[in-house]
Amino acid sequence: MKAALAIGRARWARRVAALLVLAALTATAAENDPPLASWRDSKAKTAITDFVARVTDEKSADFVPPAERVAVFDNDGTLWPENPMPFQLAFALDELKRRLPDEPTWKDDPMVQGALDGDLSALLTDHYKGLFHIIELTGSGMTTTDFADRVRQWFATAKHPRFDRPCDQLAYQPMLELLDYLRANGFKTFIVSGGGADFMRVFSERVYGIPPEQIVGSNARAVYELREDGPVLVKTMNDLFIDDKAGKPAGIHQFIGRRPIACFGNSDGDLEMLEYTTIDNPRPSLGVIIHHTDAEREYAYDKDAKSSGKLVKGLADAPERGWIVVDMKNDWSDVFAPPTPDTGSSHAGCRCAMDAAR
Amino acid sequence: MKAALAIGRARWARRVAALLVLAALTATAAENDPPLASWRDSKAKTAITDFVARVTDEKSADFVPPAERVAVFDNDGTLWPENPMPFQLAFALDELKRRLPDEPTWKDDPMVQGALDGDLSALLTDHYKGLFHIIELTGSGMTTTDFADRVRQWFATAKHPRFDRPCDQLAYQPMLELLDYLRANGFKTFIVSGGGADFMRVFSERVYGIPPEQIVGSNARAVYELREDGPVLVKTMNDLFIDDKAGKPAGIHQFIGRRPIACFGNSDGDLEMLEYTTIDNPRPSLGVIIHHTDAEREYAYDKDAKSSGKLVKGLADAPERGWIVVDMKNDWSDVFAPPTPDTGSSHAGCRCAMDAAR
Repeated sequence: MKAALAIGRARWARRVAALLVLAALTATAAENDPPLASWRDSKAKTAITDFVARVTDEKSADFVPPAERVAVFDNDGTLWPENPMPFQLAFALDELKRRLPDEPTWKDDPMVQGALDGDLSALLTDHYKGLFHIIELTGSGMTTTDFADRVRQWFATAKHPRFDRPCDQLAYQPMLELLDYLRANGFKTFIVSGGGADFMRVFSERVYGIPPEQIVGSNARAVYELREDGPVLVKTMNDLFIDDKAGKPAGIHQFIGRRPIACFGNSDGDLEMLEYTTIDNPRPSLGVIIHHTDAEREYAYDKDAKSSGKLVKGLADAPERGWIVVDMKNDWSDVFAPPTPDTGSSHAGCRCAMDAAR
Repeated sequence: MKAALAIGRARWARRVAALLVLAALTATAAENDPPLASWRDSKAKTAITDFVARVTDEKSADFVPPAERVAVFDNDGTLWPENPMPFQLAFALDELKRRLPDEPTWKDDPMVQGALDGDLSALLTDHYKGLFHIIELTGSGMTTTDFADRVRQWFATAKHPRFDRPCDQLAYQPMLELLDYLRANGFKTFIVSGGGADFMRVFSERVYGIPPEQIVGSNARAVYELREDGPVLVKTMNDLFIDDKAGKPAGIHQFIGRRPIACFGNSDGDLEMLEYTTIDNPRPSLGVIIHHTDAEREYAYDKDAKSSGKLVKGLADAPERGWIVVDMKNDWSDVFAPPTPDTGSSHAGCRCAMDAAR
């Protein structure tokens, strides 16, 4: 009898619990702002909300269980600007300058001198030899902790020359809303970017709400050492992996191990992960390209990109593939959040490598 | 007035929502079994529950925010048995045998013949040259989807020779409870294992409740191809990474990007990740070693391991490092869950490579 009562009580508790959770969720959802507030009511927004409605409706044939709702986002040019140069390149150039006095061999290094003279095209010839050299000098040989500290320090002092704000205050407002909206609908959001994983992990949680373990980026193997003052990981260039183009689906498999159902990019570097997400996926899928069409509020480019972000094949393939092309100028009512009151106060007078490239 | 009412309503809704969520959580927790039911009330269990109580108590100086509650688990020997051989090795040997008729060159391959003759020691000489060769033959050259299908098929047919069950029904019951307990306390659980990531991802979600994106294992780069019947990733041995010993903290950094606060292992292969988790960690931390002391219910080994799982330095370092050593025989009331009614029904008469090595 006691056992029967206990079972009865457990069942009752389970039902009440389910009802209460449902009530709580409904109440919290009702009081929030409408989702995607900075998206105008255009075809792009409707395509996104229709897709999310379909895959989250348990009665729909297109329902996808939450565990499989993986959404991947490129970073530079998709979640924040990549002009006048990707922010990580500006960081590397500023690091070269900062450390130059303590690195006697750098003075005779033609690639360092070229970079410091602002000759960025020299870095890109011969299969980006110069660029990798600069990345090696500024992004290996130190511990992962020291590197993260340097990145943190850079964001705290460098300012974007055109928008006059720290770079980590330049995430696109509509994309922040989209990340929130997808997560509220049970999606797990990942970054899949050519940028360095160790660089992005410093700010991704704070800026995008994406934790370090959901960052897929260019990477190399760190080496473990137990030193007198504790364990460290030393950054190297061993097994360097560039998470771009065909590397993106490979990185997705290696780090996530699931095929995404939603993919957001802005350049031909995102083509392969758009294909991997949307072609012959047994699940319903969504591919979205952010097209930079807004010279006034941000930048306008596609086939002639100023830095990274060349977009030709993506635009050509989009209609046949069913990818949604977002027209930044017409589809977004705002590009950036209003500046915070103290924006830049700690950055007054700080210059960065982007100033020259403006 | 209307606005004021709306604000009032929103506030009311928020308070009610908070109360309802609280009530719901309490109700669900109350009806469940006590956590860690298969752990005897010994020092080991108390050390684990004390640690979890400390890091989850917001009023404690040791409180750790949920986002940083990362727990890492070795797999073979920590979450399930590694005798008479790691299950993945049995899979590889069974694959050799299955595919032999279709692979004419294999017949003249002395390493294949050695493996098929059960001469496993030959695979381990010359820096595991033979073992890697077998792994290359059976784990590269096919698409990731085909490989996953083969692993799935193997688990559906092979049986453990001693316990007479499919291998994926051999997870240690106390460890399954521990995974649940940690997750219920806001921890994110990861596997960090020398086993192949692509192998483990096939069963980890179903068996351990750990999704593919939380698996860190040995891995290599897959190559993306857009074929006529859709996009595929072809498995290779490029940039092979062995996630063992010093590779474990390196893998943790590369894939998770956060320092764990809890680490569970069973061999000297886990030493470096135990160090990385517990030495000079700015957060409170817990290191646990599962010691195989139960020849009757499972196996008893440490310095003389039958397959993987040699444990010497870990035991020696444990007292000084403050690592908890779990004595399987005395600390666990059960090792495995009772067999399910249909256990093995689809496996009747199936033999696997482990039979010979029993």
